[in-house]
Amino acid sequence: MPVLVMKFGGTSVATLDRIRRAAKRVGVEVAKGYDVIVIVSAMSGKTNELVGWVNETSPMYDAREYDAVVSSGENVTAGLMALTLQEMDIPARSWQGWQVPVRTTSAHASARIEEIPPANIMGRFADGMKVAVVAGFQGVSPEGRITTLGRGGSDTTAVAFAAAFEAVRCDIYTDVDGVYTTDPRVESKARKLDRIAFEEMLELASLGAKVLQTRSVELAMRYKVKLRVLSSFEEQSDDAGTLVCDEEEIMESNVVSGVAFSRDEAKMTLVSVADRPGIAAAIFTALSEGGVNVDMIVQNISEEGRTDMTWSCPVDQVMRAEKSVEKAQSDGVINYHELIADREVAKVSVVGIGMRSHTGVAAKMFQVLSGEGINIKVITTSEIKISVLIDRKYMELAVQALHDAFELHKPA
Amino acid sequence: MPVLVMKFGGTSVATLDRIRRAAKRVGVEVAKGYDVIVIVSAMSGKTNELVGWVNETSPMYDAREYDAVVSSGENVTAGLMALTLQEMDIPARSWQGWQVPVRTTSAHASARIEEIPPANIMGRFADGMKVAVVAGFQGVSPEGRITTLGRGGSDTTAVAFAAAFEAVRCDIYTDVDGVYTTDPRVESKARKLDRIAFEEMLELASLGAKVLQTRSVELAMRYKVKLRVLSSFEEQSDDAGTLVCDEEEIMESNVVSGVAFSRDEAKMTLVSVADRPGIAAAIFTALSEGGVNVDMIVQNISEEGRTDMTWSCPVDQVMRAEKSVEKAQSDGVINYHELIADREVAKVSVVGIGMRSHTGVAAKMFQVLSGEGINIKVITTSEIKISVLIDRKYMELAVQALHDAFELHKPA
Repeated sequence: MPVLVMKFGGTSVATLDRIRRAAKRVGVEVAKGYDVIVIVSAMSGKTNELVGWVNETSPMYDAREYDAVVSSGENVTAGLMALTLQEMDIPARSWQGWQVPVRTTSAHASARIEEIPPANIMGRFADGMKVAVVAGFQGVSPEGRITTLGRGGSDTTAVAFAAAFEAVRCDIYTDVDGVYTTDPRVESKARKLDRIAFEEMLELASLGAKVLQTRSVELAMRYKVKLRVLSSFEEQSDDAGTLVCDEEEIMESNVVSGVAFSRDEAKMTLVSVADRPGIAAAIFTALSEGGVNVDMIVQNISEEGRTDMTWSCPVDQVMRAEKSVEKAQSDGVINYHELIADREVAKVSVVGIGMRSHTGVAAKMFQVLSGEGINIKVITTSEIKISVLIDRKYMELAVQALHDAFELHKPA
Repeated sequence: MPVLVMKFGGTSVATLDRIRRAAKRVGVEVAKGYDVIVIVSAMSGKTNELVGWVNETSPMYDAREYDAVVSSGENVTAGLMALTLQEMDIPARSWQGWQVPVRTTSAHASARIEEIPPANIMGRFADGMKVAVVAGFQGVSPEGRITTLGRGGSDTTAVAFAAAFEAVRCDIYTDVDGVYTTDPRVESKARKLDRIAFEEMLELASLGAKVLQTRSVELAMRYKVKLRVLSSFEEQSDDAGTLVCDEEEIMESNVVSGVAFSRDEAKMTLVSVADRPGIAAAIFTALSEGGVNVDMIVQNISEEGRTDMTWSCPVDQVMRAEKSVEKAQSDGVINYHELIADREVAKVSVVGIGMRSHTGVAAKMFQVLSGEGINIKVITTSEIKISVLIDRKYMELAVQALHDAFELHKPA
């Protein structure tokens, strides 16, 4: 039998009623003749409760114990889902990570899946079991301890199973009905995409579109897993949702596929740094050791042996960044006049694999923003993405103007 | 290092504060030089919540999935307890049942522990770990699935670890400060016992004194585990609580150690049953197959080929019993005139190993009850126990009168 992987997120299994609804979706696929692997998250809110207890107990917690505690929510949902399927006369059983086993690295709280031997579950499929319900987000380390894959890790579990079992597809059921050209709450003309390329999804995921965990997209791209994002709250047809796939599978596409944004950014500038070889390394090592996630970086032209260094980071890390560079200054590692923090910026990006073969996207983007009177503070680009930092108050306007200018409301 | 086992029940780990308080108790024992194995229950209420979900999902649930779900509460507490100990600079880690491993039978939801290989945990003690925190109530079957030991099973986990690790003692921390001569809510003069024999504790446990799971006492008796029951809510001295031990270790004791009772009993009589060899077997097989837990049994003298059969059972099983015998009648297995159910009875018992060598306990018990005008409906006896069924309205009176007559308020 062909294998299908279906993943249900926390809101899709938040109550016994929702678990029943999800189980009915599984029943539909079983009736089509698939052997189904269901990956479940914890009921929504449960993992946060457990994380809260761990933080309250031990702010500098042992990550091995953190994993032992926070992985328990998925075990509950897996058992309840198996029972629900059994009530529907569908042969099913639950599997915890260590039972499969889902072998991971020992990097507790952010482990990576190394191997999922399919033998156990395939043997049960051969014996007539129709559905294997697997607790997502968790695995087992070489030392035999429970690991977790980081927040959103159940997406990665699902893709890894799809790869290991050579599944026909990996369906991610969530509370939105697919991937949109931009957030519909910001631009009402946002359009659901029927298909999106892995590379584009990767940029969108890392740019803050919280539909899929970034690592799950990387894994799907590497192993050519057909990944579909769809809503668990709507009746589904076979072509519902958005298919994340190889760019060759997308016949027609716009040059730009989507407009992403990230609201809570800060722009920081270290003014008049004594310039010397290795100064950038010194600054960003200090920031990294301080736990600051630096995103964009710009170095201004050096004058008379001094230079300005600008970067962006999440706005709630500004204080941490300030402490880090002050410490580097007092340690004599760097020497600067002033650190300026602009907490009122946002990042807006246009993403599309079509950019590889089309020129002029950047020029058009800058013209559109300029036409709206929006000043660009920092620019970065990749092969398929252009990002700019702007004043936060213009963010919605920028997203709407770009969505319009690149005609994203029209199907390709 | 000598090994000490400490078990904390649900109320003792109900909140993060209580976990901290329990961890401090553990710290005291570590400071004395013990290697400590801590067995934890789920936070109180958690297991009931999980059981409720399973019942709502699937009334005739697959016990393997039931176990996978309801065992998760203990995993949370084990991790939180390990983190709390680490915060106190005590080297500790948590272990789930399958990690130790706690090998059990495959009788899901009421599995029995078969083996606990001490090597893994002893190896860690040798490496400097001071506390192994183990999730109680759970184990792993020969098929690699999670099992549970039945309600109250963490007591049994604790005793089994004490036996496997040849612990100096097994301390059961709970919300009462020991075993009493009777329930202090019924008889204010009830006295805490410093020591009680295994056999007596076994009778008390099975008679409804809910301090310890019956199986844990059986196990402690078989493996000569020194078992102590004490409160987690009071400052403790070394001789706090009640020690459950071999009868040889009890120097002086009263003939009667305690008065136990069970409030919600029913007395059922099958009137004028056609008597023949095997009729008792037929009746009690029918009741057993109907899921009725029969306790006392009395058969009246047979007259003209017919007899009356009387038994007691929990009052909430009366309907089940009625259906079972009606079915047996319609199946032609038994033939009777009438089934009478008296739902207003209670069981009162006196227990004491001293009865073995002292006569007259039964006579005294019956005199006391008669002196209070209490009619005895059914009597059963064992070597160290006498139980009677009486009208429920006299239960408190009977307990108080017996407690007084056997002078249980006075130390031996």
